[in-house]
Amino acid sequence: MNNFIETRYKVQGAGHKGFTSVSFFFIVFVFLVPCIPCSSCALNLVPCGFMADLQFELQHTDTNSKARAGKITTDHGVIETPIFMPVGTVGSVKAVTQQQLLTDVKAQIILGNTYHLYLRPQLEVLEKAGGLHKFNGWPKPILTDSGGYQVFSLAGTRKIKEEGVTFQSHIDGSKHLFAPETVMDIQRTIGGDIIMAFDECPPGGSEYKYAKTSMELTHRWLDRCFDRFNSTEAKYGYTQNLFPIVQGGTFKDLRKQSCEYIAEKEATGNAIGGLSVGEPEPVMYEICDWCCDHLPTNKPRYLMGVGTPWNILECISMGIDMFDCVMPTRNGRNAMLFTTKGVINIDNKKWELDFSPIDDGLDCEMSNYYSKAYLRHLMKAKEFLAYTIASVHNLAFYLWLVTEARKHIQQGDFMSWKNEMVTVLKTKL
Amino acid sequence: MNNFIETRYKVQGAGHKGFTSVSFFFIVFVFLVPCIPCSSCALNLVPCGFMADLQFELQHTDTNSKARAGKITTDHGVIETPIFMPVGTVGSVKAVTQQQLLTDVKAQIILGNTYHLYLRPQLEVLEKAGGLHKFNGWPKPILTDSGGYQVFSLAGTRKIKEEGVTFQSHIDGSKHLFAPETVMDIQRTIGGDIIMAFDECPPGGSEYKYAKTSMELTHRWLDRCFDRFNSTEAKYGYTQNLFPIVQGGTFKDLRKQSCEYIAEKEATGNAIGGLSVGEPEPVMYEICDWCCDHLPTNKPRYLMGVGTPWNILECISMGIDMFDCVMPTRNGRNAMLFTTKGVINIDNKKWELDFSPIDDGLDCEMSNYYSKAYLRHLMKAKEFLAYTIASVHNLAFYLWLVTEARKHIQQGDFMSWKNEMVTVLKTKL
Repeated sequence: MNNFIETRYKVQGAGHKGFTSVSFFFIVFVFLVPCIPCSSCALNLVPCGFMADLQFELQHTDTNSKARAGKITTDHGVIETPIFMPVGTVGSVKAVTQQQLLTDVKAQIILGNTYHLYLRPQLEVLEKAGGLHKFNGWPKPILTDSGGYQVFSLAGTRKIKEEGVTFQSHIDGSKHLFAPETVMDIQRTIGGDIIMAFDECPPGGSEYKYAKTSMELTHRWLDRCFDRFNSTEAKYGYTQNLFPIVQGGTFKDLRKQSCEYIAEKEATGNAIGGLSVGEPEPVMYEICDWCCDHLPTNKPRYLMGVGTPWNILECISMGIDMFDCVMPTRNGRNAMLFTTKGVINIDNKKWELDFSPIDDGLDCEMSNYYSKAYLRHLMKAKEFLAYTIASVHNLAFYLWLVTEARKHIQQGDFMSWKNEMVTVLKTKL
Repeated sequence: MNNFIETRYKVQGAGHKGFTSVSFFFIVFVFLVPCIPCSSCALNLVPCGFMADLQFELQHTDTNSKARAGKITTDHGVIETPIFMPVGTVGSVKAVTQQQLLTDVKAQIILGNTYHLYLRPQLEVLEKAGGLHKFNGWPKPILTDSGGYQVFSLAGTRKIKEEGVTFQSHIDGSKHLFAPETVMDIQRTIGGDIIMAFDECPPGGSEYKYAKTSMELTHRWLDRCFDRFNSTEAKYGYTQNLFPIVQGGTFKDLRKQSCEYIAEKEATGNAIGGLSVGEPEPVMYEICDWCCDHLPTNKPRYLMGVGTPWNILECISMGIDMFDCVMPTRNGRNAMLFTTKGVINIDNKKWELDFSPIDDGLDCEMSNYYSKAYLRHLMKAKEFLAYTIASVHNLAFYLWLVTEARKHIQQGDFMSWKNEMVTVLKTKL
């Protein structure tokens, strides 16, 4: 066994306590060796002998709210819900190593962005690597978005047609087309365990007519996504799952219609898009709550791109199971820390001589090891290490938050805990 | 024991294999508890019960060269020589965590830059933290430079007088004076285990007259450094050691004179400055060799700011024991990797589809875990993770190089190994 495999195995082991070399050889000889044609097992420990659709087990529903504790099983392992998914735009969670994601952050699943990965490193590299897991060495589940959101928000010149969206690369200005079919093909090549339907995300504050037309386009695209998805195979020996996305702006009748439309697809999970795009927070909560009421109970519900720690707690109480957001990493790089005691602007002079740990309420080495004063100094000096510490800390906090939420859902005191925490977490320290 | 102490202890433990909690309590109760007035032990495991000057044990001298294997003992632990010291300019080795320095890089001592630390976070913060070790959580030895080199090379407007050097901060333009006395005081406050004399470093290619005048000024400043050093106390319960610096440009008579002058100080170690500042490489080697011949044998010799892997091997063969250089981190951030098989420009298209590990010749997880293709992608995308991986790898390589050199000195085959390695390491892959 060469060092590369051995080391990757070691790190994979770090994510699965008790995963010994004995069980490694057991897996290799019992499951992988008979599976000769499956070249995807050469480097990573993908349990390709057991390809299966994503399973969702609803373990507990809160009696005082709609909060749920569940378990998602994928071919790359188990995800306990509610869960927060760190965003790894181009196959790297910014300023954080895969080792830190496993041991400090305790991430169970990360995101990749289709738009970014398609442009760089491009599909040939990802395909020859054997998919994103092998390319970046992340051994646990990956979810990829459809690129729709980036195409609409990032690209300067883009045109939406029935066929799809043409846009220009932000890297070299080259022209590209994202259509439902191409986006499915791209996500097949990237190889996420969960892949997303290609949708149009209308801007916050869109009028009824625009929201309706856009939603209808999204529904037609959804049909095309499923057609393509169902007529193609996963490339790397493990199952991919396509999640459709509810749209409909801030209009309840459209959202209801969209929920019903996507529910008919009987996908292994469903997502809510088009929220937290500029609408007032109460509206976001109202629409999220409404969508949860109209989406299947027995499938995980993923609220895309949301949000603050208190957003996450409120939306958990409505029945959301999965979240992603760039906030912990982006805000971390801009000196904003979320802690178990409230929000810290680490640039503030008040932390200059505060030698206490960043957050001793977390089981995260970085948050305990480095002091507020040291992190403030690094941030002022624009040292790379500042971005790493702040990102690792904020992500560890987000993972702690959803893990605590899950614990309280199971204990039956979620709502009282949540109401108390929302106040604490919003406190400006 | 709160998490902060516990976690810091854990990491300190990581650097000292076999350092168990039993031995932790042994140290606490046997050595630290009786030492009540010593407040410096509150956070770090500084063995303050044993304050002692730096000790150098010359363990082996090569028969075919002047290469030496030795052991430096400081109050923060042992350094095996020859050694390379990663540069932690403002109290952070750029893009590398202290945990990575301990476990991946296997650093035994790091540098801090007096000029940078004086300007930011400033002395009040460092003093109230209890010194740099406690501020940044680095549990092993630290060496600080005198700020002289930065003042001469970084500051736009600076004036050299007999008293010292006035300069303007690169941060806010404020005016400051660095004199031998202030620089000793500043380094007392930073708290390095090894501190450097304040010298003038003349530019490469300086004429004889300038080099002589400058050297004489450096010698007068050296007297003032020792006067101040000897009349002040260490602040944090462990010993600091002042190393004088040989100057004299590229002129052998001046260098000899300077070696003799600084040798008279009978310091615990001696440094060679003013090399690798623009002179041709053969001249650098010639002067380095000459200085080694005129410096005490029973003290460690530190060649400041040098250099490439092959520079380091050549200078080890002349009798240098300690090195520092920003090259592994700075060049790493610019896509240049030093490996056990040669030099890689990871930006090059030839690595686009090379999924082999960065360097499987090193016992460094990062170098084995991540592939060349992935690192190239991250570098192209200007991802922070690229800088971390490249910096950790290059530093681990430098530490591997000096550790291998030490092994071969002890085995007696240093010169044949060195000659072979110089060719290998210079190979452009």
